[in-house]
Amino acid sequence: MLKVYHAPNTRSIRVLWLLEELGVPYDKETVEFNPAYLQSPKHLAIHPLGKVPAIDDEGLILNESGAIVQYILAKHAGSHLEPKLGTPAYGKYLQWLHFAEATVMPPIGQIVQHSFRKPKEERIPAVVDDAKATLAKLFKLLDHELEGRDYICGETFTAADIMLGYDLNLCKLIQVSFDEYPNLSAYFERLSARPAFKRATVK
Amino acid sequence: MLKVYHAPNTRSIRVLWLLEELGVPYDKETVEFNPAYLQSPKHLAIHPLGKVPAIDDEGLILNESGAIVQYILAKHAGSHLEPKLGTPAYGKYLQWLHFAEATVMPPIGQIVQHSFRKPKEERIPAVVDDAKATLAKLFKLLDHELEGRDYICGETFTAADIMLGYDLNLCKLIQVSFDEYPNLSAYFERLSARPAFKRATVK
Repeated sequence: MLKVYHAPNTRSIRVLWLLEELGVPYDKETVEFNPAYLQSPKHLAIHPLGKVPAIDDEGLILNESGAIVQYILAKHAGSHLEPKLGTPAYGKYLQWLHFAEATVMPPIGQIVQHSFRKPKEERIPAVVDDAKATLAKLFKLLDHELEGRDYICGETFTAADIMLGYDLNLCKLIQVSFDEYPNLSAYFERLSARPAFKRATVK
Repeated sequence: MLKVYHAPNTRSIRVLWLLEELGVPYDKETVEFNPAYLQSPKHLAIHPLGKVPAIDDEGLILNESGAIVQYILAKHAGSHLEPKLGTPAYGKYLQWLHFAEATVMPPIGQIVQHSFRKPKEERIPAVVDDAKATLAKLFKLLDHELEGRDYICGETFTAADIMLGYDLNLCKLIQVSFDEYPNLSAYFERLSARPAFKRATVK
């Protein structure tokens, strides 16, 4: 059975959420999210950088959440969560799927590092301010995009919503507010009300 | 005809390189890479964050380089540059394709920002040091992965090599050396010797 190495509040939520949406059975192993465990030989064998998520699918080990999402969709008949391959709608879907990680996560990651993870004496407030300014631009862009739409690709929920929904969930957790963006706020309410999201984010 | 908005040394190289490998004709528009132009209404209509790359494919505008690469492969019969959909090899390929942007580009981006782009008084050397330490770990991982292999997925060149090859090309340009990693160095020599890479990186 597909095994998912998970830690609460991390990108592994994307993987669990997808599997819950698809109804694909999986075995969840919640790892200790501390440097000692993450850098242990046992965990490095699963993720050479000492992070999560990782999956083990009959011996195939994968680590990047975006790759895992696309792999699971391709393997486990997830086509109802993607537009038809090669169409313009598929292009837009890919755009938001990549945007969620490549464009939105770097500033969130900087805030996490310089507000929580690094030793206090190494935290740089200017990095956090910079990242918050970048996120404000991204929230504005997403809010504009979501005008009159339920989901980022239109009327249908897709895996791009799973990628983006995790970003917004993490923003909530680290208290980076997007409450002033009404479409974005309503979008997150819509996503986080889904039973699959709730099951993926249970501690 | 597919139009590519390009600027030298940027992620648009990935798009040009892919199109050159596929032999798909395209129309290249080299944009002025300065804040005044990138934030102009004309360019913001193509890329709402004022960046490159962007493509315009019969009115479909896309911006994320990873998304553009996957869209072009799906649309333009690029299957010889990807393993078969849904196989374990496809999973590994997706992993490296996402890794190139999601894991390798953030530290490179920080070095670019804090060594070149930001006004001198806003540059933070500790951010650059941190990013260089992260890149050293990633180079080591890639060097290990490339032991005995010509390409990141094995004996066959794939679009994941295009994604990663751009990272390495940018490292060369910003003088972040990976010369001490023999497999990685030889890999970049191999990639940069390809005629399609040369055509994509002509100024």
